[in-house]
Amino acid sequence: MALTPARTMPGVLELLPLDQVAFQRMLDTIRRNYERFGFLPVETPAIEYADVLLTKTGGETERQVYFVQSTGSLEQGEKPELALRFDLTVPLARYVAEHERDLSFPFRRYQMQRVYRGERAQRGRFREFYQCDIDVIGKDSLSIRYDAELPAVIYSVFRELAIGPFTIQLNNRKLMRGYFESLGVADAEQQMLVLREVDKLDKRGADYVRDTLTGEGFGLAPEAVEKILAFVQVRSTSLQDAFDRLDALGAGPEALEQGRAELKEVLGLIHALGVPETHYALNLSIARGLDYYTGTVYETTLNEHPQIGSICSGGRYENLAGQYTKSHLPGVGISIGLSRLYWQLREAGLVATAQSTVDVLVTQMDEAQLPAYLALAGELRAAGIATEAVLEAGKLGKQFKYADRAGIRFAVVLGEDELAKGVVTVKDLRRGDQFEVARAELVKTLRVELEQAAAMG
Amino acid sequence: MALTPARTMPGVLELLPLDQVAFQRMLDTIRRNYERFGFLPVETPAIEYADVLLTKTGGETERQVYFVQSTGSLEQGEKPELALRFDLTVPLARYVAEHERDLSFPFRRYQMQRVYRGERAQRGRFREFYQCDIDVIGKDSLSIRYDAELPAVIYSVFRELAIGPFTIQLNNRKLMRGYFESLGVADAEQQMLVLREVDKLDKRGADYVRDTLTGEGFGLAPEAVEKILAFVQVRSTSLQDAFDRLDALGAGPEALEQGRAELKEVLGLIHALGVPETHYALNLSIARGLDYYTGTVYETTLNEHPQIGSICSGGRYENLAGQYTKSHLPGVGISIGLSRLYWQLREAGLVATAQSTVDVLVTQMDEAQLPAYLALAGELRAAGIATEAVLEAGKLGKQFKYADRAGIRFAVVLGEDELAKGVVTVKDLRRGDQFEVARAELVKTLRVELEQAAAMG
Repeated sequence: MALTPARTMPGVLELLPLDQVAFQRMLDTIRRNYERFGFLPVETPAIEYADVLLTKTGGETERQVYFVQSTGSLEQGEKPELALRFDLTVPLARYVAEHERDLSFPFRRYQMQRVYRGERAQRGRFREFYQCDIDVIGKDSLSIRYDAELPAVIYSVFRELAIGPFTIQLNNRKLMRGYFESLGVADAEQQMLVLREVDKLDKRGADYVRDTLTGEGFGLAPEAVEKILAFVQVRSTSLQDAFDRLDALGAGPEALEQGRAELKEVLGLIHALGVPETHYALNLSIARGLDYYTGTVYETTLNEHPQIGSICSGGRYENLAGQYTKSHLPGVGISIGLSRLYWQLREAGLVATAQSTVDVLVTQMDEAQLPAYLALAGELRAAGIATEAVLEAGKLGKQFKYADRAGIRFAVVLGEDELAKGVVTVKDLRRGDQFEVARAELVKTLRVELEQAAAMG
Repeated sequence: MALTPARTMPGVLELLPLDQVAFQRMLDTIRRNYERFGFLPVETPAIEYADVLLTKTGGETERQVYFVQSTGSLEQGEKPELALRFDLTVPLARYVAEHERDLSFPFRRYQMQRVYRGERAQRGRFREFYQCDIDVIGKDSLSIRYDAELPAVIYSVFRELAIGPFTIQLNNRKLMRGYFESLGVADAEQQMLVLREVDKLDKRGADYVRDTLTGEGFGLAPEAVEKILAFVQVRSTSLQDAFDRLDALGAGPEALEQGRAELKEVLGLIHALGVPETHYALNLSIARGLDYYTGTVYETTLNEHPQIGSICSGGRYENLAGQYTKSHLPGVGISIGLSRLYWQLREAGLVATAQSTVDVLVTQMDEAQLPAYLALAGELRAAGIATEAVLEAGKLGKQFKYADRAGIRFAVVLGEDELAKGVVTVKDLRRGDQFEVARAELVKTLRVELEQAAAMG
């Protein structure tokens, strides 16, 4: 039989086991923090009806959808009526609309699943990747205070992920809209076009942007352009500085006043929630492209790795599920694109391959003593210590090598001598030393060692 | 705008949050036990190349595949070259063949992901469902002892899942093959046909089966048929009984002797691994349909709910990845179809909606005290207590009602009185009582309460 080459399509992040352990630990950390803040788990099917998924979208996203079709449907030449979700927000909207009567509002859900996008193959672009989302959905209304809670969650997650110092950056679409309005850029679409030009500041320089905005296409007054450039360069350095900079914008139209009041309340509550001032800041350049967001918007960046871009983004939206229900469902949410983040951290050398989840290897010295080895392994497992027992006979050196290669830290040896003396030899493959311990003390000793190892990271 | 009805396709198990919590706890329990036995996590993409997925299969499975195609590929009228995995075994084979050089053997992996089958819509049939698999893969060879380890894992998983008494049932394909051979049914295909008839015993009765097997199509001798019927009805009641029944089969061809020796070794080691005799048994009717398995085969049934059928099945196979690599990779594995199991347990009233993952609701008595409430919530979260804070003002009664409906057990009240006295009122919504506790004692008190609640299930 001719062999089929074993391969996966480009754009998927398939990991070796110890990298998968590292990835899984990040997923677990995120989940633990989401739960700690009182968010409830939801999972939705990867396959949805295409008409349900694609009610709202058009353009870019629609071109990136993966359609799904069973063998039978394909054979009959039917048009696929199923598709894979491309994010977790549309499925959330569908879920909340479908189960509205069974949910308690404000509905706080977390969802950590894979999403699928028919992207062109390109380094660092994923076609199948994890998103880790939380959202709070109100019925009819949702207090602005929830906008302050999400940065507290972000802080808690990234502090525990321990991938270096980070800053949660905030803006408010109303503030932005109001400020642009006051400069004569009142049309929402034109505001977006202006912002798109402003986004080129870093790449093309201020002169280029200035020329474009005062040029034929836009025709803005030079003073207005200067004000816009100054506005989007606002970054606060402390809570008080954030308040001062907001006040310094001066009086403006209603939208600006509302946005300013919201930002001030949010900033104050973030402080009350215990997020240190070093970890959040006003950044008036953040717009989050989409038309979707209407108030607070967030991005989070690693201070020492700005090239990675935002590692956690989101914001406030006016109505989650208008395409499915007449209920008015405002919400606020954030998303961590974990596959991409993990990949970038690895590229930057910021995550290492993990130690194995297997704590201990029970070696096999003497085949005849196998029942004793199995009993020992059982004892360790009952104590919650992840244990592999060598079942195949082989040289001890080879067994140590296997443990070392597999990332298992401790190997336990129970030979004739040990059995006679009622002890066990524990070999620490990381430190490269070994010690004897009374058989009755083994569980306790290993627990202490493992706790120390865990505490030291 | 016309509303799109919010709905999912038939054959998916989408859960409300508290059911999702219950489901998630089962997933966590399975994972914890898999890890405790030294299995490493692997995840593979849901989307694979169709030619990679479909090398081996044909017939039924191929008809049930979901093909995947991006918008661009669909528009160009191309034949889809991608498909969704229909199990975790084919992706495992692909994974091991692809990453062979980077893996340590015996390779012990667990994988808990969703799989996809284009089944006809039918009650209890799922099109998207979880499988929770473990496999041990050897390079060139794999000791029969690993066949004994998997029942120990099964025992550990289902004991902890606490869904009632269960029995792990074992057979060996070689024993079966040898025994059939000794009765003149030597052809593997004919053996399968005979077994298929024998499977009708319960439904059609012994006379029907006897008539068919001695009839024209099969033409077996009546004595051979009697022996087959007696063989497949063998069930052991203890370890010694299992040995006795194996011996009682008498001498036979090589396959039978080999199968008997393997079963005896496996049974003995299951005992040495500490699995109680009440929880495993010989069951010589188990064949596991597929041609795939070559030695030990397992099924697990709930003693009090035989109608549910096998809740965990698997066995030994000769070569995992022959379609992708020339390496000889024998293995042994089991699979739990968790979506189906959860659904059946729920139908049988054996799983209840879980309590919320949220432990405590910090209520809001007085809007002006919001910073105090947020600080309190932060304190609880820092202590690992999952806490939701009410951010929107509202009547206290309504807040209690929300907590109750959302399955949150404890509500914490910090009003004027409490603030003055330096205490907190804790309302236990399950027991329906409340008590005061000094503010400084709150974390400790709640921890004790929550531990007790967890211990009581």
